[in-house]
Amino acid sequence: MRMVDLIERKRDGHELTKQEIDYIVEGYTDGSIPDYQMSSLLMAIFFRGMTPRETSDLTLAMVNSGDTIDLSAIEGIKVDKHSTGGVGDTTTIVLAPLVASVGVPVAKLSGRGLGHTGGTVDKFESISGFHVEIENAQFIKQVNEIKVAVTGSTGNLAPADKKMYGLRDVTGTVNSIPLIASSIMSKKIASGSDAIVLDVKVGAGAFMKDINDAKKLAQAMVEIGSNVGRNTMAIISDMNQPLGYAIGNALEVKEAIDTLRGEGPADLHELCITLGSHMVLLAKHADNIDEARQILEEAITSGKALQKFKEFIEAQGGDSSIIDDPSKLPAAKHIIEVKSQEDGYVSKIVADSIGTAAMILGAGRATKESVIDLSVGLVLHKKIGDEVKKGDTLVSIYSNTESVDEVMQRIYESYQISAVKVDYPTLVYAEIHAHDSAAQ
Amino acid sequence: MRMVDLIERKRDGHELTKQEIDYIVEGYTDGSIPDYQMSSLLMAIFFRGMTPRETSDLTLAMVNSGDTIDLSAIEGIKVDKHSTGGVGDTTTIVLAPLVASVGVPVAKLSGRGLGHTGGTVDKFESISGFHVEIENAQFIKQVNEIKVAVTGSTGNLAPADKKMYGLRDVTGTVNSIPLIASSIMSKKIASGSDAIVLDVKVGAGAFMKDINDAKKLAQAMVEIGSNVGRNTMAIISDMNQPLGYAIGNALEVKEAIDTLRGEGPADLHELCITLGSHMVLLAKHADNIDEARQILEEAITSGKALQKFKEFIEAQGGDSSIIDDPSKLPAAKHIIEVKSQEDGYVSKIVADSIGTAAMILGAGRATKESVIDLSVGLVLHKKIGDEVKKGDTLVSIYSNTESVDEVMQRIYESYQISAVKVDYPTLVYAEIHAHDSAAQ
Repeated sequence: MRMVDLIERKRDGHELTKQEIDYIVEGYTDGSIPDYQMSSLLMAIFFRGMTPRETSDLTLAMVNSGDTIDLSAIEGIKVDKHSTGGVGDTTTIVLAPLVASVGVPVAKLSGRGLGHTGGTVDKFESISGFHVEIENAQFIKQVNEIKVAVTGSTGNLAPADKKMYGLRDVTGTVNSIPLIASSIMSKKIASGSDAIVLDVKVGAGAFMKDINDAKKLAQAMVEIGSNVGRNTMAIISDMNQPLGYAIGNALEVKEAIDTLRGEGPADLHELCITLGSHMVLLAKHADNIDEARQILEEAITSGKALQKFKEFIEAQGGDSSIIDDPSKLPAAKHIIEVKSQEDGYVSKIVADSIGTAAMILGAGRATKESVIDLSVGLVLHKKIGDEVKKGDTLVSIYSNTESVDEVMQRIYESYQISAVKVDYPTLVYAEIHAHDSAAQ
Repeated sequence: MRMVDLIERKRDGHELTKQEIDYIVEGYTDGSIPDYQMSSLLMAIFFRGMTPRETSDLTLAMVNSGDTIDLSAIEGIKVDKHSTGGVGDTTTIVLAPLVASVGVPVAKLSGRGLGHTGGTVDKFESISGFHVEIENAQFIKQVNEIKVAVTGSTGNLAPADKKMYGLRDVTGTVNSIPLIASSIMSKKIASGSDAIVLDVKVGAGAFMKDINDAKKLAQAMVEIGSNVGRNTMAIISDMNQPLGYAIGNALEVKEAIDTLRGEGPADLHELCITLGSHMVLLAKHADNIDEARQILEEAITSGKALQKFKEFIEAQGGDSSIIDDPSKLPAAKHIIEVKSQEDGYVSKIVADSIGTAAMILGAGRATKESVIDLSVGLVLHKKIGDEVKKGDTLVSIYSNTESVDEVMQRIYESYQISAVKVDYPTLVYAEIHAHDSAAQ
């Protein structure tokens, strides 16, 4: 087999066989296929796409390029949740204890990552004492005992994907649905869960700007899941504005506590119930979606979910007193209010620009070397559809420096106030199930 | 400027500016742009194409990446001829003395190259004593004195093209018309001639298999020539069967002598007159094409063309007595005849397969390290449209070994004999002039 022939086959619109895809991924991982051949193949894939069969084979080849996590010692159906990424997405911190509190095992492998805020691991670490360096045996024991654990020791998962992603990033080949789908799914599958709930974000603050592209990506991922025997479903949710109010690490933990207490932002609450109910359903802890939603709502109103978060924090060495006293979380020195300069209705909040403002404050990493400030960030007071009067606070800036002109400037530029009333935006646009995508 | 942004612009169908193309070619030549970014750009160009303006800018950027030859000290309009390559193409050896004999200066830079036979330099070197290592001053002096010279010292012409071609060869990006056109034209333009006649081959034995692709390539090259101020025209000629009868180095020199004497194969004679008359016209040594053809036909019948070949050989240190006694050329030990096994008409000769048979005998290079045997090759006795009887010789194999089973097998497989009469194929399909391509 010669790589140049495989590049030409893909370039000319032919389907690659499983053997050919394995040859490519193995060769690229071991270095026998050079970057310059891989990048021209990736560009050919950008133009020609991949069939569902090719996409699944690529995913499995990337899974097989490294370690896979064995969660079989955990009782019950392990359901993982993955979001394609947005601004102020606090769902994982809410969902882990919420879903665990109703008996669904949550075995979470999380990273730090780059972005507007830190990753899930960074957010949890804003709780004093909380640590994610857990031995594998302890990790499994904890899930069996209290139904929830998070580890930062993710091992060498899908190294082929890591290497390919690095190449795609500099060769203009990121934006390809089969490549995005296989990249995400390879890591999820290697992580060992039995079922997967995907939250595909769409809008100005998301990678997918267009609803049809978001649906295609969701269908591609659901199809991969089905093809490799992992029960998978996806929802398409809005990311035209940040989710919830808080953007920042400690600020999001505080918001998660509010949400687990039933006092969180309406959109964050609803999205957590939606995603959580699909997790409960896939874990077979409910017979239908309405029952699953009801179980979760009860876990919140009864205090069971918040109690589970306490247990979870303690099991990982954290100070659970922050739940009753969130002022113990890292706090920024200054709170600066950004006030509306006019009357009207919020008609637009440019999510990625707001996210960048949080990153400028120090809430997220621009490069791997960046040091995160867990205390800083933004809290929105007005979201799309809300009425505002001149002088109302739009956003509170949590900062450790008083000079926040650039951040304030970005916030003003991100907010658009309309004179006429504006509808509240849709939160969940669609659900994608295995049979939907098969029917396409 | 960032290369990844330029890749994405091309990928998304935008036109690159001259500044952007210069940045790419300079960066790739000096190594600051890595192969893996260049190959993904090349694949994006494969899919998106390039506008005539982009193609011309790419060509000039490649010209500017290295040396350019200054032929201004040569009197008159210097016209170069280039063929896109086929099997048994003896035209350069015929045209150099033929055109020079009517007063048109021929300053030929030639290489060795890979292929079914050697390059033009190898072919000339089958004449004892003939050498192509000429100093630049001597080269120019010789053209001014006798109107013709050939040099193998081509300097560092278009190194960006050389590096890009090497990359295209292993990344599935050879077959792109703007990339082929700019590659050919960059070398021609760097070679310093004022005008260029192109012979674009089409058919089973050529790189272009399809007449429409051949026309597009010709138009692209003619347009580049016009855009950079080099008067350029192209013909599209047939390469469904080898040109002339001989395929091999010394064998083709012998055939060139026959042709200069007016006793060559009809198709080779006609193609040389066609290409030559356009060279004469571009050099302004005739007022119209009919006059140009007549001048060349007279040069052959009068013996002037053959006399010029003698002069040319002597000027380059060669033994010109081979003209009157071609048996002094390197001769193979064995001549093995391949005879027809049936009666009928030749309906097909698979040109590239015949070419490969010649290469197996040792007439051409498979790799840069291959050593050429100047004496070996094939002489066809029957071409498409010719009647054959069982036992007639189809091909004579000139070999230095007696075991030619594989070669013979290939020849039989390449020839197709039909029971019904077959038309003689068209030799020249079209002419492409600057105004034609501008009108497209």
